[in-house]
Amino acid sequence: MEAKKKITFDDIARYTNFSKTTISRYFNNPDSLAPESQRIISEALVKLDYKENKVARILANGQTEFIGIIVPEIYHRFFSEVLNQILSTYETYGYKFLVFIGNRNEESERRYIQELLSYQIEGMIVLSHTLSSEELSRLPLPIVTIEREDRHVCSVNTDNYTGGYQAAALLADRGCDVLIHINSPTDPHIPAYGRITGFQDCCREREVRCEVLYRPVDRSHEGDQTILQEIIDTLEQEHKGEKKGIFLSNDTLASTMMNLLFRKYGRLPDDYLIVGFDNSPASREAIIPISTVGQQVDKLAGEAVRLVVEQIAARKAGKSFRGKKPVHLVIDPVLIRRESTEGTAGSV
Amino acid sequence: MEAKKKITFDDIARYTNFSKTTISRYFNNPDSLAPESQRIISEALVKLDYKENKVARILANGQTEFIGIIVPEIYHRFFSEVLNQILSTYETYGYKFLVFIGNRNEESERRYIQELLSYQIEGMIVLSHTLSSEELSRLPLPIVTIEREDRHVCSVNTDNYTGGYQAAALLADRGCDVLIHINSPTDPHIPAYGRITGFQDCCREREVRCEVLYRPVDRSHEGDQTILQEIIDTLEQEHKGEKKGIFLSNDTLASTMMNLLFRKYGRLPDDYLIVGFDNSPASREAIIPISTVGQQVDKLAGEAVRLVVEQIAARKAGKSFRGKKPVHLVIDPVLIRRESTEGTAGSV
Repeated sequence: MEAKKKITFDDIARYTNFSKTTISRYFNNPDSLAPESQRIISEALVKLDYKENKVARILANGQTEFIGIIVPEIYHRFFSEVLNQILSTYETYGYKFLVFIGNRNEESERRYIQELLSYQIEGMIVLSHTLSSEELSRLPLPIVTIEREDRHVCSVNTDNYTGGYQAAALLADRGCDVLIHINSPTDPHIPAYGRITGFQDCCREREVRCEVLYRPVDRSHEGDQTILQEIIDTLEQEHKGEKKGIFLSNDTLASTMMNLLFRKYGRLPDDYLIVGFDNSPASREAIIPISTVGQQVDKLAGEAVRLVVEQIAARKAGKSFRGKKPVHLVIDPVLIRRESTEGTAGSV
Repeated sequence: MEAKKKITFDDIARYTNFSKTTISRYFNNPDSLAPESQRIISEALVKLDYKENKVARILANGQTEFIGIIVPEIYHRFFSEVLNQILSTYETYGYKFLVFIGNRNEESERRYIQELLSYQIEGMIVLSHTLSSEELSRLPLPIVTIEREDRHVCSVNTDNYTGGYQAAALLADRGCDVLIHINSPTDPHIPAYGRITGFQDCCREREVRCEVLYRPVDRSHEGDQTILQEIIDTLEQEHKGEKKGIFLSNDTLASTMMNLLFRKYGRLPDDYLIVGFDNSPASREAIIPISTVGQQVDKLAGEAVRLVVEQIAARKAGKSFRGKKPVHLVIDPVLIRRESTEGTAGSV
């Protein structure tokens, strides 16, 4: 690239016939200008090859407007949807996001965090489970976690307990004789553990027989198929003729279970009722639309960004950005009733 | 935060009992150290609250090690998987990624690009379709696109033509009487258009009757269900008793079609064979595993990063980073045969 004369606001104003004030407003509050004016200025910037130098500005005022994000992976819909929603808050707060995929490797995550700190990120949002909240709390910047162990840091989580309770209540209301919850072995310090206790408490209050089956699910689709097929075989022996209400820890598992039953019977038998968790596309797009406990992902992500931005502002104002105790925000789950709990689904 | 004495390599060396050379190697080439040494140093950095100041280094040498990414959205599995793979190249190239979601809004995308340029990103990878390659080619930095209109910029795309050809050949080999391709109306300048021409050319060569049905699919699951149900109703009238080979433009559509047939018949009827595109989880996790033309997402993403990093290096070396003509790399599709094209799938 040949060296070019540096383009100034004066040059842009002259080129577009707008005032310098208008050009400045374009950079600081673009939506205060008419869309047509925005378009003219934005095209002029490309034509003039204008480069605002934020790096120089950072050195002047120390504000990078970067937030670091560490996600475990974005293969599962829950993580990619949360990431989608976080990135979309740019329009509201103006913060840019540097994203790392942790892949459940402690050492990598520590290096990523050092890398993020070296770019003077102002805050961090962590979805990955790998590092303890105690370790995260020692980092010198505002941190908010989403749906992971959070004893020592601020967090935003779904009210998983209520979600588990709602799922059990729906199945009990539909007259199930026995309720089964299928989940992977879960650490009680993870918010999602509440799904299990909520389910159990509801069954106890309603005096409905119940069982929690801990199985190593969520590792591969083929593995899940094998595990769920074994569960179906056992249920058909042990609960023959009974109306079975099955609550699975996520919608992907619920859809896999539905497909196994459908392949066997050509429909969802009347004595099986199924509820998932998340309200991910897997529930809506299943062969029979699956009832589910919806997580409000837009709110989880939106509140996480709001909270971290609030603490960044406190820190800039010279105040302590950490209160005496970490803040834990809780988002309500939303029970969504669909065909899989009608008890007459899939009849042909 | 109280002001702290700046931590130097000497301090870290003293604290860990490693030499300064070892500490320096940790920052420049961590994997040249034993994992245990990496762990000790990384923990020391947290304890000492060490902050490398890359922002100052950027000002010194102008290298941010940032690559900007613009994705249209990450709701669809294809985009979230490509993004996943791009972010994972950090371990190979060390580049960090600033990610924006375009949401198909031209004005927003232009603003995002200005924002990215203001942070002195060194290159850009664009998956979004919104801005023309002509406009992108005027930006003063290396750009690589993936699976979008690319006449004026470098790109990495799947060989869509071969993919469409393979899908048709599989269905013809299985003895289908008529082949149907279902797709949304597609701009001939988009790489995915090749799926249509490849399908048609194969049908012509094999002398198999075929039809391409252009429908407004991929806008919502419910819309897709309605459209595909209408197609099924028409096919059953017009091609009654014939063996129908259906090639859908993506796996999600293929799975929706499969579910509609399964709900109607309690199985996949022998006179329907189905092929999707992408090899996304939707194909493997469908009620009957669906044959599909797989995109090698890891290669698409890996080659895109490699190409942009190569051009960044050329630019740093003072060479022209753009050749005379844009480079277009092509990745082979991989045909995956599953139960949906056996012709006896789902029999009970």
